[in-house]
Amino acid sequence: MSEQSYTLAELAKILQVECVGDASLRVHSLATLSSAAEGQLAFLANPSYQKDLVESSATAVIVSKEMAEHCPVVALISANPYLSYAKVSQLFDKRYTGEGAVHETAVVSSTATIASSAIIGPHCVIGDRATIGEHVVMGSGCSVGDGSSIADHGLLHANVSIYHEVTIGHHVVLHSGTVIGSDGFGFAPSAEGWQKIAQLGGVTIGDHVDIGANTVVDRGALDNTVIGNGVIIDNHVQISHNVVIGDGCAMAGFSGVAGSTKLGKGCVLAGGATVVGHVELADGVQVTANSMVTKSLTERGSYSSGTPLQTTAQWRKSAVRYSQLDRLARQVKQLMKKTTTKD
Amino acid sequence: MSEQSYTLAELAKILQVECVGDASLRVHSLATLSSAAEGQLAFLANPSYQKDLVESSATAVIVSKEMAEHCPVVALISANPYLSYAKVSQLFDKRYTGEGAVHETAVVSSTATIASSAIIGPHCVIGDRATIGEHVVMGSGCSVGDGSSIADHGLLHANVSIYHEVTIGHHVVLHSGTVIGSDGFGFAPSAEGWQKIAQLGGVTIGDHVDIGANTVVDRGALDNTVIGNGVIIDNHVQISHNVVIGDGCAMAGFSGVAGSTKLGKGCVLAGGATVVGHVELADGVQVTANSMVTKSLTERGSYSSGTPLQTTAQWRKSAVRYSQLDRLARQVKQLMKKTTTKD
Amino acid sequence: MSEQSYTLAELAKILQVECVGDASLRVHSLATLSSAAEGQLAFLANPSYQKDLVESSATAVIVSKEMAEHCPVVALISANPYLSYAKVSQLFDKRYTGEGAVHETAVVSSTATIASSAIIGPHCVIGDRATIGEHVVMGSGCSVGDGSSIADHGLLHANVSIYHEVTIGHHVVLHSGTVIGSDGFGFAPSAEGWQKIAQLGGVTIGDHVDIGANTVVDRGALDNTVIGNGVIIDNHVQISHNVVIGDGCAMAGFSGVAGSTKLGKGCVLAGGATVVGHVELADGVQVTANSMVTKSLTERGSYSSGTPLQTTAQWRKSAVRYSQLDRLARQVKQLMKKTTTKD
Repeated sequence: MSEQSYTLAELAKILQVECVGDASLRVHSLATLSSAAEGQLAFLANPSYQKDLVESSATAVIVSKEMAEHCPVVALISANPYLSYAKVSQLFDKRYTGEGAVHETAVVSSTATIASSAIIGPHCVIGDRATIGEHVVMGSGCSVGDGSSIADHGLLHANVSIYHEVTIGHHVVLHSGTVIGSDGFGFAPSAEGWQKIAQLGGVTIGDHVDIGANTVVDRGALDNTVIGNGVIIDNHVQISHNVVIGDGCAMAGFSGVAGSTKLGKGCVLAGGATVVGHVELADGVQVTANSMVTKSLTERGSYSSGTPLQTTAQWRKSAVRYSQLDRLARQVKQLMKKTTTKD
Repeated sequence: MSEQSYTLAELAKILQVECVGDASLRVHSLATLSSAAEGQLAFLANPSYQKDLVESSATAVIVSKEMAEHCPVVALISANPYLSYAKVSQLFDKRYTGEGAVHETAVVSSTATIASSAIIGPHCVIGDRATIGEHVVMGSGCSVGDGSSIADHGLLHANVSIYHEVTIGHHVVLHSGTVIGSDGFGFAPSAEGWQKIAQLGGVTIGDHVDIGANTVVDRGALDNTVIGNGVIIDNHVQISHNVVIGDGCAMAGFSGVAGSTKLGKGCVLAGGATVVGHVELADGVQVTANSMVTKSLTERGSYSSGTPLQTTAQWRKSAVRYSQLDRLARQVKQLMKKTTTKD
Repeated sequence: MSEQSYTLAELAKILQVECVGDASLRVHSLATLSSAAEGQLAFLANPSYQKDLVESSATAVIVSKEMAEHCPVVALISANPYLSYAKVSQLFDKRYTGEGAVHETAVVSSTATIASSAIIGPHCVIGDRATIGEHVVMGSGCSVGDGSSIADHGLLHANVSIYHEVTIGHHVVLHSGTVIGSDGFGFAPSAEGWQKIAQLGGVTIGDHVDIGANTVVDRGALDNTVIGNGVIIDNHVQISHNVVIGDGCAMAGFSGVAGSTKLGKGCVLAGGATVVGHVELADGVQVTANSMVTKSLTERGSYSSGTPLQTTAQWRKSAVRYSQLDRLARQVKQLMKKTTTKD
């Protein structure tokens, strides 16, 4: 039995939920209702999986009060099974561990400050005056530029690139391939071609921010690009120079925000949703997948653009008609006029 | 003359095609019909390039039987010239070679297993209990996490990041900047903000899979994310947690699949095509460029969304009318009613 | 006072603009009109910020002749304030400096040629016969493949991956995570599955090219992929095999060009704009954000596709009607016919 096993009584206490059944049983891992075996804990968040609950071989299941009667095994009764599952999942997570250490192949500036409990992986490079906080863990091949700081409990997976003068709060996770502090895309047109505008600002990232893989956050042109506290960002996301992302926003894969745009608190950009530059979104704006926001939005609520999926044969017909839509609308206007006149 | 040169007789044998002309001539490289010079081999797959065939200075050309009569030089007659070209291109590819070796700057765990014929590049990092198969070639700066395995004949270009507990089949190619096994984007909303769900599953990738640059495959939440055999994936692709990609699928650049979605066998997502989470696509579904699939598709065939390109001036008119489309449709309904009534 | 400070007289001379006010004052950095304090230089390019000009605490402001009268401090009067700002920003940029040196942890082939003034960062890997020009600066963890060359004054930020046989001009900037020379996405379908086509071409990049973070430029199948001079490319951009990008083009984030397509000179792809394969765009074509070009465009001008943003509730109605658009158009045609007949 793994060291990570817990009795159901222990879990009930940690999750502050009620345990109905034998609380002395132990579980060593999490699994889905349909795949769970003895020694495993499952959860039911979506009532449409009730059938899986009835047939589950899990040792225990996190369920709502309403679903508890259908639970064939020990039930951990939660007001919010999905949230309880999220919390318990942390207990079974495998994290880098060990005492603070800088790997012998890492290259650390003599003017950098590395907390004693920090773990710096192989081939990392830490620049001048950089500061790495307590319990920070950095996978191999990461680069931290001059004057940048990562506060306590940060986690950088392998091959993260952080430029100079980037300030990162505590409990921030950055996944592999992510780049923080690259130049904003700023060029002035001139007779001799594009004249680059030096990007002299930095990046400020708040606390408890989670950023996925291969995402890019550009540095500001003059002021900083700013990401608030508690923001969650997926893979392949683009945050341009001088963008401000409010606390608690969520940005899914391929979403992006162009330069100088401000998102209020708690905004949600679904996958592929983008926002043009120099606009502001109110708190609580939600943008559905692949939609593009082209203006400021002053009201919270859900916004969309795009067209629905069709078979390609049907879609071709819609698409042709779309090109002719203005003519069609003018024809209808004429018809309305004629009909009204004749009435 | 390069060591890589072949007589046309040799190539005809390898490709199992007929050689019409002097089979003793040698070719040392491949080129397009219009740029090929003496000593080079070209091909004609698209009949619209027939003019280039007639004028080609290649030493030999791979052609169909129908086109052979127009070939001014030696013809290698193939039932499928494009496929023959693909096969012959392998002969002229430059690959990392050399005897198995772990570069002195690589950092390899004492509990990892590296096959004797594997080549591990500079600054690679191989974690605990990782397994690297025979003839694997790994460019510089790659990271392989604890417990992960790469089967025989794998090719990792520079700066690939593989997390822990990722299983990769044989003959798999991964291009630079690609990340396998990063956390899925899973968070439960709570009064205190987003509660992260630990991503406890892994990733399983089949045999003969080809993955481009800067692509991301997330690990599963509980079960694994799964990519089947013979799948080809381009650059900048997103594969989310617990996605299942069927054998032989093709995913072009910027395509993506959201969490828990299953693609059948032989599906094709063109560039920018995306599929929402928690749906299933039947075998042989094709999605055209930049289209979004928002529901399960039970029938093979081609699907699309989006609108056609117009000049921006024309498009503005279509776009305004799109916003008014419901009103327009209701007006037409009224008109239909009136007209019918009056008839 | 920073070593980087300049008198306004010095700046006026460098920018070739007129200084109205005390030219002996010094400025040490740039700031926005609203945040600038004493010792800082600001600019006014957009007349809508005139209010910020009046209240600015900057020591001096770059303004147009028209706006000069409203400037409460020293004015640097420019015919193009934005361009003057771009030029002056270069003076305040922090760049890697120091004497030429190859870091002791870098791995450089004995057949590579590194100019004496080049700076090669930690953990870089330079392949056989590679050539690195004068004043090239390369951040940590970069990889340069066999036979590739980077001409004078190149700047590679950390973790850039350059494959073999890639030719890069002078004054080229590449940001972190960018990949140059990965395989194009070329496979021939066969009864046994996808047959890979070896990508035997290379990549040629011109002079004064700027490429953002996590962008990918694939190598050609037979001929090279080509990027002209003075091209600017943002983050997360995709340039596929055998694409030709004309001089002075601009490509914003998430834009992409599929295989064998040619862009004329001075084309602009806004964010997310994409172009299908095997087409040609005339000089000066502009494509608005998230639009898809599906055919060759022989006329310069602006092109668009897509639909406008609506509230999701309104959008649902438009979207449903889009699916029915062909029927609607046929109904209107019928109505037109009937009405005309009856007239």
